[in-house]
Amino acid sequence: MEEKGLLIVISGPSGVGKGTIIKELFRQEDNLTYSVSVTSRSPRAGEVEGINYFFVVQEKFLEMIDNNEFLEWAKVYSNYYGTPRKFVEQALEEGKNVVLEIDIQGSLQVQKSFPEGIFIFILPPSLAELESRIRGRGTDEEAQILERLGLVQDELKYLPYYDYGVINDQLSAAVEKIKAIIQAERCRISRSQRRVIS
Amino acid sequence: MEEKGLLIVISGPSGVGKGTIIKELFRQEDNLTYSVSVTSRSPRAGEVEGINYFFVVQEKFLEMIDNNEFLEWAKVYSNYYGTPRKFVEQALEEGKNVVLEIDIQGSLQVQKSFPEGIFIFILPPSLAELESRIRGRGTDEEAQILERLGLVQDELKYLPYYDYGVINDQLSAAVEKIKAIIQAERCRISRSQRRVIS
Repeated sequence: MEEKGLLIVISGPSGVGKGTIIKELFRQEDNLTYSVSVTSRSPRAGEVEGINYFFVVQEKFLEMIDNNEFLEWAKVYSNYYGTPRKFVEQALEEGKNVVLEIDIQGSLQVQKSFPEGIFIFILPPSLAELESRIRGRGTDEEAQILERLGLVQDELKYLPYYDYGVINDQLSAAVEKIKAIIQAERCRISRSQRRVIS
Repeated sequence: MEEKGLLIVISGPSGVGKGTIIKELFRQEDNLTYSVSVTSRSPRAGEVEGINYFFVVQEKFLEMIDNNEFLEWAKVYSNYYGTPRKFVEQALEEGKNVVLEIDIQGSLQVQKSFPEGIFIFILPPSLAELESRIRGRGTDEEAQILERLGLVQDELKYLPYYDYGVINDQLSAAVEKIKAIIQAERCRISRSQRRVIS
């Protein structure tokens, strides 16, 4: 039913496996495009303008905020990061499905600025499983791990603000579900609710 | 996300291939149940109570209408046919997905009586293609064929009252889409629209 592309927002707690799911999704599916963020920080070695990020000076970034040019933005330490509305809308117009990987707070912003997006919450099989995954990375200290797990419990409260919940118990099953969601949404009659018989 | 089953309403114009799609869907998928209708007509040879229909006398059928026991019902010539709410709800409670094949008018009734259903409209690739299919059956007279094609054009107006539209261009592709819709709907956070950030 859809000729335009869809904005597919993949969100969920840190450590839940969003990145791995998306990587596998792109491996299996054509017609998907990563959303490229704008940032005010300097490029690191090997980073390419328009591929990894769009790099702008801070002054320009603040101007873009004022002009409502972001679907969402955040300041992380002293650097700004944001999702440019124009880039996303252009890709959608070309019929591409744009995938945006983003944390809960960013996703809530996008729900306001782009409610016609498809909002998918990736869930851990259990808090215990998530804990073991975060520990498995071996990059975090004990206090950080406990803080993160507390945060996850808070974040699960935002589930009702999403369209779909996908439990990441097995990578292949989670990817299959997201592919099904994309295929189903392309058959949707209307982005909004169906009309009601009166 | 769903533990209960889903009511999947497969609707669309006569001759569009609903029956063939559903037959193939049942061949490929477990955990699907046909909705069994109640009828006031007499059993034909080989028809089994509870499999083909639930057979009741007309008096009983009219009583069931009065008691709001149908998701939809219709009188065809002198016989009554209806979808029993109790049967559907019991199967859904057991976690089964109930498939209901029904015409447009019946589907509109179900949308009122059971709005949490998933309403799928099967579309012909084109009116020309539909005409050739109806002619291919060889069972209809010219006047009937033209009348039916006019009716289809009218029926397409009801598309906005559905959740999904699936074009039956290739059987396997149409079945894949319906399977994706069922899988996606099982990941839905809520049967109603997502909550909105205020």
